[in-house]
Amino acid sequence: MPKKRVVIAGMGFGGLRAARALAGSDVELIMIDRNNYHLFQPLLYQVATAGLEQEEIAYPLRGLVRRWHNASFLLAEICGVNFADKCVQTDAGPVQYDYLVVAAGSRTNFFGMESVVAHAFDLKRLDQAEDLRNHILLMFERASHEPDAKLRSALLTFVVVGGGPTGVEFSGALRELIVYVLSQDHPDIAVSDTRIILMEATDSLLTAMPDDLRRYAYDKLRSMGVEVMLESRVVGATAASVELYGGTEIASHTLLWSAGVSAAELAGYLRDVESGAGGRIMVQPDLTIHDHPEVFVVGDMACCTKDGVPLPMMAPVAIQQGEYAARAIMAREQGRSLPAFHYLDKGAMATIGKSSAVATAAGFKFRGFIAWVAWLLLHLYYLIGFRNRLIVMMNWTYAYWFQERQVRLITAIKRRAVSVVLDRNEP
Amino acid sequence: MPKKRVVIAGMGFGGLRAARALAGSDVELIMIDRNNYHLFQPLLYQVATAGLEQEEIAYPLRGLVRRWHNASFLLAEICGVNFADKCVQTDAGPVQYDYLVVAAGSRTNFFGMESVVAHAFDLKRLDQAEDLRNHILLMFERASHEPDAKLRSALLTFVVVGGGPTGVEFSGALRELIVYVLSQDHPDIAVSDTRIILMEATDSLLTAMPDDLRRYAYDKLRSMGVEVMLESRVVGATAASVELYGGTEIASHTLLWSAGVSAAELAGYLRDVESGAGGRIMVQPDLTIHDHPEVFVVGDMACCTKDGVPLPMMAPVAIQQGEYAARAIMAREQGRSLPAFHYLDKGAMATIGKSSAVATAAGFKFRGFIAWVAWLLLHLYYLIGFRNRLIVMMNWTYAYWFQERQVRLITAIKRRAVSVVLDRNEP
Repeated sequence: MPKKRVVIAGMGFGGLRAARALAGSDVELIMIDRNNYHLFQPLLYQVATAGLEQEEIAYPLRGLVRRWHNASFLLAEICGVNFADKCVQTDAGPVQYDYLVVAAGSRTNFFGMESVVAHAFDLKRLDQAEDLRNHILLMFERASHEPDAKLRSALLTFVVVGGGPTGVEFSGALRELIVYVLSQDHPDIAVSDTRIILMEATDSLLTAMPDDLRRYAYDKLRSMGVEVMLESRVVGATAASVELYGGTEIASHTLLWSAGVSAAELAGYLRDVESGAGGRIMVQPDLTIHDHPEVFVVGDMACCTKDGVPLPMMAPVAIQQGEYAARAIMAREQGRSLPAFHYLDKGAMATIGKSSAVATAAGFKFRGFIAWVAWLLLHLYYLIGFRNRLIVMMNWTYAYWFQERQVRLITAIKRRAVSVVLDRNEP
Repeated sequence: MPKKRVVIAGMGFGGLRAARALAGSDVELIMIDRNNYHLFQPLLYQVATAGLEQEEIAYPLRGLVRRWHNASFLLAEICGVNFADKCVQTDAGPVQYDYLVVAAGSRTNFFGMESVVAHAFDLKRLDQAEDLRNHILLMFERASHEPDAKLRSALLTFVVVGGGPTGVEFSGALRELIVYVLSQDHPDIAVSDTRIILMEATDSLLTAMPDDLRRYAYDKLRSMGVEVMLESRVVGATAASVELYGGTEIASHTLLWSAGVSAAELAGYLRDVESGAGGRIMVQPDLTIHDHPEVFVVGDMACCTKDGVPLPMMAPVAIQQGEYAARAIMAREQGRSLPAFHYLDKGAMATIGKSSAVATAAGFKFRGFIAWVAWLLLHLYYLIGFRNRLIVMMNWTYAYWFQERQVRLITAIKRRAVSVVLDRNEP
């Protein structure tokens, strides 16, 4: 009897965990992703703030194929699934499956605001993090020789929208980049010439956290010099400004949007599946979709409720669901079945700055230095690959002690049109 | 009396050395470059073959500004020089100078072959090295699921033009990437399915080296599995083929051009200067240009002859000339003058593969393991920055012992047009 084939569509946290659990087992495993690496998304903001290199938070998937002899990898964009024929459609051709794990993740939700789509930075992909880093460094280079005070100030104003973990962590890290690195690199720019504005639509940062930790994060960011604007909503943007609900306009050349996520494009290509909030796919208690017990959906794409509330779109949920899907497939093959998926909330954490973070775990709350050390260790632990861990630790240590960052290269520069006339030494 | 201002146009090896020699002295120093980093060009081929990360061979110039209190940096594209007004024209505005050091380096010379410009990879800039790495990895990903044998073979054929150090080092490194890494990553691709063809127009590789070292390099490359074609000339290219003089066509999707260099664009913008071979600027024995003793030209841009032969366009020449220009400026300020520039040939080296290189130094010739160790140490020594050296050494050690490369990420994928119809689960 030929081996059953399990296709995993998307190698984020959910897909990777499912693959890991099936590695070495008695199924044929095909991993599909549009990139040839697994991305450690929670540290993307550190690439955007010149703290880490791209290579340090991305792990080549082919490195797994080497070790897992039942696995193969296909670099492809998935454009649809034919559930009747059990076939995934990709730009590299169709792929048949016996079991399918859909784990394509999420994308940023701009809530239909086209001017924001056109002008805001997004922080979901590796190249976007590099683009944002290049842009921030370029703003400082331009401000260094900008004679117009108003324009100079707009170049040095950074607006971050969304008070969730990404917005909080990015704002804190950007502030530290400016205080410890960029203001040293640019003797003509004072820290007080720069502004970071963190904007949140609700009345609190980190809404998933307990009250006192939210308060701590708010106070800490403000004491670091980040301006926090609560109950403020962005309604539009241009290349040089951000427009708020109520009419206020902020002159700024940098807008990072981290105010919402919805399921990845793929969810929209799947017909006859029921979708919930944010375009997520409604799943059964065993994470399969209606009428297709061979199709699992895990991670950000799955709309799985606990006590009537959808589970949050974050890595721990994806990891537990990926593990569950793999175990459910193996159980099915052995003629067994598993009890329904149950999410075990192990807590959450967010780092605010050097030596400062907030965390919840096992009913306890932590903040400050202890939470920060826990954050460091946990992130190092979850990074894949010995070398990645070592190099990330070295970079963090280096940045901590020497207050410098090696990574501050502008790897691509969008040149302004050259307006000076080429002077060829004519009189 | 205000300090004299020295402007350095271009921060390659020549400009950097001149700046270093003037750091802390009694002049005002303005460093201009189109990038915000100094690039260690001799190791670019290792970025292209997934051995090193971009950050490891690029050093942020602002890191120098921190330490050198008489120096400032301007990120700008230089579009011309007005010698009469002593003014450099840039896209960030004009910059006045008392002394000017022109050190804008060289660009690749395609000898006017437009089809080659359109389809060949070039290896002068950091982004080009990343592009080439992405492309090589993508060729393997595509070949992995390509059913057409002819197309598969063309995807796995790599043509390198130019038997100088870049061509030799790249060919050897690519062969090792394939043997030790990519053939492991792709169980369905055998080393024997791949071809690397190194093409040279003359009758020998590494023409600057002594006869026996040339022979050694040739034999070594061939024993590694690189096909070396001497006395062969490329006359055209398409996306899928390379055309040779005589009509032969090689089916290949990858062509690296390293067969010639000429002076950077800037040389063409300078009027009233005499230019020599490859568009290089003719200089006086003291490296200044005719009628302008305050303007020095160093490195690849300068056409400086020794015994009637122009000095080669390589880092050691640029470094010695940069040093000379700085010393000449300081001497001039002290009312002294220096004897004419004299190039001290310290030798040359090229690495061919793991544990194998050729080198000449102080009249001696080295090859094999000893030359390779010398190559390693010398390159580590010349890399700027403690952290860069450490991380490069770690990466080399890791690659040497574990025969894996961490850096094999495809950071940007040029998607083919999606030709499959989006199947939305219709019958």
